Amino acid sequence: MRSPTAVILAIGDELALGQSVDTNSAWLSARLVEMGVMTGRHQTVADDLPAIARAISGACTGPDAAQLVLVTGGLGPTADDLTREALAMAMGASLVEDARAWEQVQAFFRERGRTAPDRNRVQALRPEGARLIDNPFGTAPAILAEVGGATVYCLPGVPREMKGLFETTFGPAVQKRFAGSESLRTQIVHSFGMGESDVAERLGMLMNRDRNPTVGTTVSKGICSVRIRARGDSPDHAKRLVDDMADQVAGALGVAVFGRDEDTLAAASLSAMRAAGLTCATAESCTGGKVGTALTDTAGASDVYRGGWVTYANALKVEQLGVPQGTLDAHGAVSDPVAFAMARGALERAGADLAVSITGIAGPDGGAEDKPVGSVYFGLADRRTGITEVFLSKLPGDRGAVRRRASMIALQLLRLRALGEPASHIRWIDRIETDASPVLAAPVSGAVSGAASGAASGVKVP
Amino acid sequence: MRSPTAVILAIGDELALGQSVDTNSAWLSARLVEMGVMTGRHQTVADDLPAIARAISGACTGPDAAQLVLVTGGLGPTADDLTREALAMAMGASLVEDARAWEQVQAFFRERGRTAPDRNRVQALRPEGARLIDNPFGTAPAILAEVGGATVYCLPGVPREMKGLFETTFGPAVQKRFAGSESLRTQIVHSFGMGESDVAERLGMLMNRDRNPTVGTTVSKGICSVRIRARGDSPDHAKRLVDDMADQVAGALGVAVFGRDEDTLAAASLSAMRAAGLTCATAESCTGGKVGTALTDTAGASDVYRGGWVTYANALKVEQLGVPQGTLDAHGAVSDPVAFAMARGALERAGADLAVSITGIAGPDGGAEDKPVGSVYFGLADRRTGITEVFLSKLPGDRGAVRRRASMIALQLLRLRALGEPASHIRWIDRIETDASPVLAAPVSGAVSGAASGAASGVKVP
Repeated sequence: MRSPTAVILAIGDELALGQSVDTNSAWLSARLVEMGVMTGRHQTVADDLPAIARAISGACTGPDAAQLVLVTGGLGPTADDLTREALAMAMGASLVEDARAWEQVQAFFRERGRTAPDRNRVQALRPEGARLIDNPFGTAPAILAEVGGATVYCLPGVPREMKGLFETTFGPAVQKRFAGSESLRTQIVHSFGMGESDVAERLGMLMNRDRNPTVGTTVSKGICSVRIRARGDSPDHAKRLVDDMADQVAGALGVAVFGRDEDTLAAASLSAMRAAGLTCATAESCTGGKVGTALTDTAGASDVYRGGWVTYANALKVEQLGVPQGTLDAHGAVSDPVAFAMARGALERAGADLAVSITGIAGPDGGAEDKPVGSVYFGLADRRTGITEVFLSKLPGDRGAVRRRASMIALQLLRLRALGEPASHIRWIDRIETDASPVLAAPVSGAVSGAASGAASGVKVP
Repeated sequence: MRSPTAVILAIGDELALGQSVDTNSAWLSARLVEMGVMTGRHQTVADDLPAIARAISGACTGPDAAQLVLVTGGLGPTADDLTREALAMAMGASLVEDARAWEQVQAFFRERGRTAPDRNRVQALRPEGARLIDNPFGTAPAILAEVGGATVYCLPGVPREMKGLFETTFGPAVQKRFAGSESLRTQIVHSFGMGESDVAERLGMLMNRDRNPTVGTTVSKGICSVRIRARGDSPDHAKRLVDDMADQVAGALGVAVFGRDEDTLAAASLSAMRAAGLTCATAESCTGGKVGTALTDTAGASDVYRGGWVTYANALKVEQLGVPQGTLDAHGAVSDPVAFAMARGALERAGADLAVSITGIAGPDGGAEDKPVGSVYFGLADRRTGITEVFLSKLPGDRGAVRRRASMIALQLLRLRALGEPASHIRWIDRIETDASPVLAAPVSGAVSGAASGAASGVKVP
């Protein structure tokens, strides 16, 4: 039996005209693949009623007809939201008001202390013969209909609402109805700290094209991800194949691998610190809070992450973290002794076990010949040893890329330290033997806790 | 005359199966719009020969036929690269080898010190009657053909090659051939603080579908954007129409509008403070550094943004921002007096003119009946008046949505204050008359600068 097939339609001028990129369709396809449902086609259609109606009809009938049609977007309350009407047209049905849905829309507003605007009343319309599905994530209910031989789900285009509905309601319904007999499983293994060619070299033969599972690499935002895709006779078989291969890949790449699929580097860093019973703090300059943001993306970070400082102005580096003014004057804000003092200051003041600091030149301005744009210093202070190390990285790319990569290096530094692994697993940084120790040996202002005071007089030996 | 229309096809299993997001089509659409060519539809097709052939035919004939069809992907040398063959099928032609193209492929490899693999020989094939276009950016030549009444360009799927070819070769050719006598211009007006239906209500008749320019709304990440599209007899005419309409839209929506096209709320907030000669600081709890990150996304933030605190642990709220322990004990970390004290503490310690604080329950855990997930308190301290106000918002959505929306509210609070506008322009917050003033009137630890000390004894009146 061939796997059941799907067509995914995305509705909106902003997509067809290139003002936004459609990410919903790829997300939905990836979820469907996990159920063994193969998507044959995505289609993005402008806000044009007959064109949308023809796209729905074309997806449900004809040589490329699908069994399952997912439509995102065009369910909002405004005049350019045409999906309801187009679906009715494709069904040859008229639109009727669903009393229960109108009550739900009103309730959504009521709970937020507001009255539902009249305009939102259209969101309670459905084609006769179609069913509305509650949307607890927003005002637009989803619509379920049968057109030709196909099942059509119309979903809101707001990714958060669409994903919420998938996870809670229509995903399980699709799974029950369409999950296929040949199974396909994918898994992604994420690594940070090695380039793509290093990764490919370590994987070697595993990447040959004609194998099952297939193994490929992609790089995005500094993370090198290994995509694995296995076909099996059953979900269990496919899962076994993909899991085995993922383990082989992880074994070949070692500690650079921080997670799989939806895992993030920040969450992996938190887990590693949690497992080691460590807390941490951050002191950020050029990244402006990105490391703190990443660490708190995951719920439950509070048992590990104590907090941090964004010392963008030099005065705050001095007053809040105890960076000596003389060090700033002598070496500049982007320097190894400042990264050193920031990390140590954060460690002491936050009462944390580990602290990471970042000071760099994100660009586009501010670069100099000896410190070009992309020069970033990292400090890593460890209460247990009393030692603070400093690393330098020269990062490529624009301001956004430098800030992103710098915050990921900081997260990986924390993670490797918690795992007891050397920072040299990050290929893009060099450890610095700083000459700043004499300057920093002077007492810093502010309370210095017992364990950290060792660091205050410490030199930076590993 | 109607504008010439385009259909864009993207070929590849990795796209249809959701392993990669198709960004080429949006990029191409945006370039075409600038030439006055409107894209009616994008279509992503899996690596399936008859399906690709039908997609090409369907784009060139029938009710949704386009004058211009752009196809990306499927021109590589491997067995799953089927665009050449599908194009031949759609044309009813056979494939022939192009001797000159084979020479170019060989030259491409020769220049890199390698011999062209036999496998790459297929890249020199073209349907009889089609023309190959040199590709200096890679090995796959592009293909130009006429099918039905439409002109079809097949381009490599690698974004770098596709964009390179667009800029140097086929973009100018399309411009020459299709750039209509009629011109099209788009502009986007971004607002924050009103819901989509409020925006639509204020825009009223401007959103009628049959007008020129057309006006539509989209919501993404809490920002309601108004898309304007004007057709004119000349580029100047279209630009005048779109500019006039953008001004009308901005007038109707008022101070909620923070920018156009690529503008961000953080950059607008910075500009407003810079224009008013104000500096700012941040004190973040549940957002973990998102406001600081946003403010420093833009280069040159340092003249406005002094820095901030991520006081995730309560101890840091007390030690670093001077939040009284008794206030935390009595009211909890997510409370109006804590938001109050955080903002005031940040103002004093950073020596800034404005400070914004955020403390809330981002979820998924931590909610209570009286403070459900999504409850977020904001403090806004103003050195000039000595007054600190507190606001409460109940934000919908998951952890990510709450954190995102909360940080945008903080940015808009800073912006409105710098503009001398009331915070009530943000519909999602309520100002709180707190009973915390007596508690907070107690002196806080740490240096209190002259101007801020007025606030220390201040009550929260507007």
